[in-house]
Amino acid sequence: DSPASKKLCVEQKLELSYSERAKLPNIHPLASKLLKIMEEKQSNLCVSADVTSSDELLQLAESLGPKICMLKTHVDILQDYTLAFIQKMQAVAEKHNFLIFEDRKFADIGNTVKHQYEGGLYQISSWSHIVNAHAVPGPGVVKGLSAVGKPLARGCLLIAQMSSQGSLAAGEYMKAVVQMAEEHSDFVIGFICGTKLTERPEFIHVTPGVQMQAGGDLLGQQYTTPEEVIYSKASDVIIVGRGILAASDRVEAAELYRKSGWDAYRKRAGQSSI
Amino acid sequence: DSPASKKLCVEQKLELSYSERAKLPNIHPLASKLLKIMEEKQSNLCVSADVTSSDELLQLAESLGPKICMLKTHVDILQDYTLAFIQKMQAVAEKHNFLIFEDRKFADIGNTVKHQYEGGLYQISSWSHIVNAHAVPGPGVVKGLSAVGKPLARGCLLIAQMSSQGSLAAGEYMKAVVQMAEEHSDFVIGFICGTKLTERPEFIHVTPGVQMQAGGDLLGQQYTTPEEVIYSKASDVIIVGRGILAASDRVEAAELYRKSGWDAYRKRAGQSSI
Repeated sequence: DSPASKKLCVEQKLELSYSERAKLPNIHPLASKLLKIMEEKQSNLCVSADVTSSDELLQLAESLGPKICMLKTHVDILQDYTLAFIQKMQAVAEKHNFLIFEDRKFADIGNTVKHQYEGGLYQISSWSHIVNAHAVPGPGVVKGLSAVGKPLARGCLLIAQMSSQGSLAAGEYMKAVVQMAEEHSDFVIGFICGTKLTERPEFIHVTPGVQMQAGGDLLGQQYTTPEEVIYSKASDVIIVGRGILAASDRVEAAELYRKSGWDAYRKRAGQSSI
Repeated sequence: DSPASKKLCVEQKLELSYSERAKLPNIHPLASKLLKIMEEKQSNLCVSADVTSSDELLQLAESLGPKICMLKTHVDILQDYTLAFIQKMQAVAEKHNFLIFEDRKFADIGNTVKHQYEGGLYQISSWSHIVNAHAVPGPGVVKGLSAVGKPLARGCLLIAQMSSQGSLAAGEYMKAVVQMAEEHSDFVIGFICGTKLTERPEFIHVTPGVQMQAGGDLLGQQYTTPEEVIYSKASDVIIVGRGILAASDRVEAAELYRKSGWDAYRKRAGQSSI
């Protein structure tokens, strides 16, 4: 327990591979599953499938499924959502071994998010492995979601930082989010963030706003590269939306991002590039 | 322009009635409409209709409609939402002269909230006079919503404070929200808050978590009384949910809250109680 051995311990943590983290004694089973998938498929790529047709979303999941560890959805922008559709989506996720992450950004008081997560037309808790939430309502939002999701072995990512310009998720806000996650680690499996926020290797860091070229859109979105996110910022998963969806060949683009994200991970881990 | 006259000016602002504010030159047309409704119906009561059946929601709107200025909905907890239902709701709102406020708490980047507001199964922008948004993503969330809502003469309330325990909407965060509202006053008509936040009388302050008895629930919700909210905190509209929904006679309870909120407003304005 000398200072030297403590330092060594931290450095060792930094170098844990995805598969080593998957085996940690305190890891949430769903986080473990995601890390195993990442290692198996050599992919830290999550595709953000922001399309408005169920058929197109299914086609995307089918064609990009082999390249990804996670598919991020916004089912509330689909013009033709049905439970039959979501059952097909679950089958595709099973077949290609990826997790579904409904990017609902729950942000209400506990009693309300319980209903929003479980009920309504979408019944999100019945099919989405992972959801996310803003911490702004205080810990009640996590408690409400957890009351529904924990018995179903679901997990939650807390939004600690956002990729959009002028986001108020910064400074003290961000620190409060990390603390909230640590206090609810039986349901919170990690963060939506731009950079690694905690040395606790049980938490998974997931970063949106990723493109091959840095830049932005007209409504404040800002982009960072896979190399920057995984290697420099030490995040774990890249979320790519328009960089793949707007490509003429989406499968080719997804492979490019998968390889880029994976190479950055290998570089970070000090291993030779595959 | 002596200090004395400046002070007088501020005090005069504090005393503006709802109907005087409705006529302000810079007021948003929808804020003006709401203030006129409040004066006409002598009601600053918004009912939070958190039920899961469309029929029950319609019955609530029909029976409580005469007592309220606004009905707050969470359509994403209805197990049987249809566009036919929402058309009936619009007719009831028209008949009883209240506004519909979908409490969606948009909280994503601009490009995403555009789709969530306009599209999907709910098509919120087509029927909800007012929506609300968290400011945490930065100004892009307002810009995205405004791109859809402004052409439809809709309005938005920014969430500056929350009634739930441990909310992170406080201090600098809250100040940033007020600034964001001021910079987008062509679409933002006011705030979700616990207390009056700005002297600009064009903005409407709307306060959730109101019950006759102060207290809370098991998931962090905290309650304040109508008198406290309208008289002491100088807010404009009280949102009452469980205080009315859990009453054995909901119409009687709504009348109690309407009168209580209106009396507190008259008391604040220095007028005799009605």
